[in-house]
Order: sequence, then structure tokens, then C-alpha cells
Amino acid sequence: MPVGTLGTVKALTPRDVRGTSAQIVLSNSYHLSLQPGIETVHRLGGLHAFMRWDGPILTDSGGFQVFSLDTLREVSDAGVTFVSHLDSAQMVLTPECVIQAQERLGANLIMPLDECLGHAASRAEAERALDRTQRWWRRSLDAHRRIDQALFVLIQGGLFPDLRREAARAAAAEPAPGFAIGGLSVGEPKERTAALLRATLAELPPDRPRYLMGVGHPKDLVDYARLGVDLFDCVLPTRLGRSGSVWSDLEGNRLHLSRRALLDRVDPIMAGCTCTTCSDWSVGSLAALFQSRELLAYRLASIHNLAVLGTLTTELQRTVVYTT
Amino acid sequence: MPVGTLGTVKALTPRDVRGTSAQIVLSNSYHLSLQPGIETVHRLGGLHAFMRWDGPILTDSGGFQVFSLDTLREVSDAGVTFVSHLDSAQMVLTPECVIQAQERLGANLIMPLDECLGHAASRAEAERALDRTQRWWRRSLDAHRRIDQALFVLIQGGLFPDLRREAARAAAAEPAPGFAIGGLSVGEPKERTAALLRATLAELPPDRPRYLMGVGHPKDLVDYARLGVDLFDCVLPTRLGRSGSVWSDLEGNRLHLSRRALLDRVDPIMAGCTCTTCSDWSVGSLAALFQSRELLAYRLASIHNLAVLGTLTTELQRTVVYTT
Repeated sequence: MPVGTLGTVKALTPRDVRGTSAQIVLSNSYHLSLQPGIETVHRLGGLHAFMRWDGPILTDSGGFQVFSLDTLREVSDAGVTFVSHLDSAQMVLTPECVIQAQERLGANLIMPLDECLGHAASRAEAERALDRTQRWWRRSLDAHRRIDQALFVLIQGGLFPDLRREAARAAAAEPAPGFAIGGLSVGEPKERTAALLRATLAELPPDRPRYLMGVGHPKDLVDYARLGVDLFDCVLPTRLGRSGSVWSDLEGNRLHLSRRALLDRVDPIMAGCTCTTCSDWSVGSLAALFQSRELLAYRLASIHNLAVLGTLTTELQRTVVYTT
Repeated sequence: MPVGTLGTVKALTPRDVRGTSAQIVLSNSYHLSLQPGIETVHRLGGLHAFMRWDGPILTDSGGFQVFSLDTLREVSDAGVTFVSHLDSAQMVLTPECVIQAQERLGANLIMPLDECLGHAASRAEAERALDRTQRWWRRSLDAHRRIDQALFVLIQGGLFPDLRREAARAAAAEPAPGFAIGGLSVGEPKERTAALLRATLAELPPDRPRYLMGVGHPKDLVDYARLGVDLFDCVLPTRLGRSGSVWSDLEGNRLHLSRRALLDRVDPIMAGCTCTTCSDWSVGSLAALFQSRELLAYRLASIHNLAVLGTLTTELQRTVVYTT
């Protein structure tokens, strides 16, 4: 799922996004609540109309943003009090208001508020956060009204395999149409991520989708899809693209368009890539556009990086058979 | 002609540009010579391949940029010595090297070096600049080798009707496939522009196109096309677009997407406009994107403004009959 933080996958039209084989787009209820505001999106016809995206949309709860952006915050059982990263206004997220905001936005897949931890969290902190996340889940479920929106249950547990297992087991028993796995890939070594993911997935039934939040490197997609993950989201492909980094193969090796030596290359970024960027533009032209700081460069690089993930996921859908 | 200073109409793909009814794109040999460099464009297959534009391209000589950008410069009969606005390197433009650079780029329509003056120039200065422009023209013609490129003769004469008439009469006698009218709309009142343009056009034969350089407001297009101008170029539509100003009618009245009150509007920028921006996006969504500084806003606003000029010029082509 490409990320359209503020209702647009940066620099791209919905048509561009569709051309990369993406099927679902993610947007951020936290960011949208700050600008242009939930009510503005609602007045303009809801998130699908606002984004001009007629496919499925997933919104996250804002939990991750509140915990990861450099905001002053205070967490209590009631919810999270924090200061907007934009204008320093004091704001509150509660499990209930997060659901209400997402119902007002109108995405197809919505997420409950959770308490996120960094990779340095202690076991006691992880236990407390998991407990709070589970209590918030009950309140989210009670607040949820729109049956046309699928509210996933969110699994935390820090970097502790037994907590992960316990959280997954509890989630599996909930009346939720899908599972969101949060708090992984937050700075820990990849072997540890994989082990924690295995512990989590082993407890989940195979009949509902498993969404690993915030993961998006090509290698991670392949490795974790093979473990049983169905959905991914990440700003990586578009953020890299805007910084001039483009994936030159399906393993995620990169070219950097700022390199002067690339100005001579008349071949596309990736041999065999069918994206519109590779169909039309040479590496040399793209490097020249990027080095001239032309806006078009950010767009073309983003399209290619998303298309690399599109190619990978299409191939994974065709070939991966996993057992649980 | 939309302007693609560095080989791209800013934020737009060639397909976007084509969708606005534009037929010719202008690019700047001065800017391209600084970045990515004439030889880089040549190695990448020439300007058409570099821009991915398979229609006609016009390049200007760089004369206007040297005189209008804030560069230190010294003009002599030999040419113009100036300091690059990018890296302060000392550079020289001569009539010959300007033609050679444009032949190397490979545009369809190319321009000779001229001496440009501001609207405060005295009669003596205008006479001297006209004389130099005419002598540079002979040298340009001698240097011109590629018969597949149309080298226009360039008409100066400052803001003096008799000099304009004299310059136009001399240009009419030259073996040139078209006429470029420079040095107008440089800050003088519009009535004066129109009078000088009339004086110029009266001396030109009707069998070759007349190109008024750097003019692009919707009203100007209509007024000057009625006087007999065939070609226009201007950064105005795209520069306005990137700054959030969009034309809301064919007279060139504007909406500014930074206005908070626009967030409520569910109608398109301009009723009846068939551009992709107006077909897909409401004013409210565009204002939200612009106010969130989303790159997509610059692109969508640029597309609309170019489409307004496309609609106007298509209509003018159909209806304007002028007599000489």
C-alpha cells in the first residue's frame, strides 16, 4: 500500500498510483486531522472523493505518528495528550475519537488506537503497553458504528516473543476482519523482527488478512510475505524517490540520481521494468532532471519505486503458498 | 507554447502538456547550457529525446536571460560576456556559439542572439541595440548549418515606433521562415505595447509566422492574436500555477488556492473546463493539497492554467481572421 499521508501519494495522481499495480492506498488520520481537517475532508465528499481514489483506502489511527513524531505527549488510560507538530496546539487522541474520525473520513479499512513503543522498551513497559492496547481495542470496538468499514485488531507486544504470542492469541479470538501487526521493524535487527513475526503469525488463523505496519523494503516484502504477511505499507518507495534514490533491481539495490556519472546513461533504471518511468526515460535524463531540481524528477522516481514493489507483490501473490 | 526551461514544463510530463492542447514547447538554450549542459543533452539523444516531446520544440538564444537575469555582463560587437547565475563562472555568448548550441540541441525552431533592452532605454541605446541585433543576425545566418531547423529573424527597436517599423521592414526582406518580436511587454503600459506591435506587424508579410516573445496573459493572447500574432510563449501559466494562482475564467481572473474559504468549494476551478484537473478535482481538494504543500497541487494547477490558454488559442485559431 503506497502511503498518501495527506490524501495524496506525494507528487502522484491516482492514475499514476494505479499504474504501479497498487491496489490499496494508505492515508493518515492523524495528519489529515491537522490539515486540512477531518471536517473539511468530510464536506468535500469523504476521503475517496478527496483523494480521487476509487479503490480501497486504509487509514491508520494516528497512534504511530503521535509516538514517533517529535511531539510532547502524555499517555494515560484515557488516551494520548500531545502537541501538534504543526502549530503546537494541544490535542487529545482517545480510542473513541480515533474511530469517529476514521468513520468520518470513510476509508474501507480502519485501525484502532494503540500504544507504540521503541525498540529500547523494557519488558514491564511492553506489558503495560500491550495491556493498554488491548483495553483500548475493546473501547474501539464499542465505538465502531459503520459496518461498511473493516476495523482490524492491532497486535503489539514489543520485542518479547511470549508477549507477541499472547497478543496474537488474544487477537485471534476477537471478532475482527483482519490483523494489524504494529511495533515491529522499529530499529531492531532483522533476524529479531523475523523471529517475532513468526511467533505472532503462528497464532493467527489463515482466514483473515495479516497486515505488517510500516514495512516496505523490497527484501522485507519478499521475506515477510513468505512468512505469511498479506499487507504492507511504507513511505520508503516515495520518500526515497523524492530524495533521488531509485531501486535498480528487485533486491532493492539503489542508484542515486545525484551522481554526475549517471548523466551519460541512456538505458532505463531497471532492465525489463514496465513502469512508465522506465518505458519513457533514460537514467541520464532522470539524473539531469533531478540535478536541476525539477519537480518531475520526484514524480518519475516515485512511480518507478512503487512499480518495483508492485511487480514484487504481483509476483508474490502468484507464487507464495505458506502454511500456518 | 508552454515553457520547459530546463527540458521539462515544470511538474508536468509530456502527456500532461499534450492534454492541455499545447502543440509546441519552448526550452531555454541558456539554462540548458548551464545544466545539464548542451553536450549532455546531445549525448542523451538531443532535446526531443531528452524532453520526451515528439512535437515541435522552440529554443531561444539566451539573449533575454542574459539581459534579464541578475548577471554581471558586458556587451560588445563580439557578443555578451556574463557571469552564470548558478556558479558565477564567466561565460560568453556570441551569435555563432548560440546557433551552434541550438543546432546541437536540435529544436525545430531556433532564435538568433539579440540585444535586449528594458523599457527605460533611451532612443540612442535602442538605435545602437537594434543595429547590433541586425549585425548579429547576419552572423547568425552565416553560422546556421542545419536546414531542418527554422531560424527566425528577431525584431527589436525598443519602444520607438519608427525604429520598430524600420526593424520589421528590414526583417521582412530577410530569408527567414518566421519573425520573432522581442523587447515588448517589458514593463511598458499595454496601450504602448499594442501600438508598437501594430507598427511592427504592419511591415511583416502574411506568409510567415509572427512570434511575440514572452507574452502569456489570457487577455494579451486574445488582443495580440487579433492584431496578427501567431505564436506566444510565457512562464506565466505554470509559474502562477506553482504559486497557487489558477485562472477561473478565460479573461484571466484568478483564484488563490491559499485562501481558507476555498476549502469548502466542491465545484471545479472553471465551469465547463475540460482539463484533467477540472474534470477530477474540486476547488476544495485543490486548496487542501496546496495548503498542505503537496507537490501534486503544483502539477494540477499548472495543467489547468495551460489548458485555459489551450482553450483560448484553439478558439482563436478557429475564429480570428486578420488583415495586413
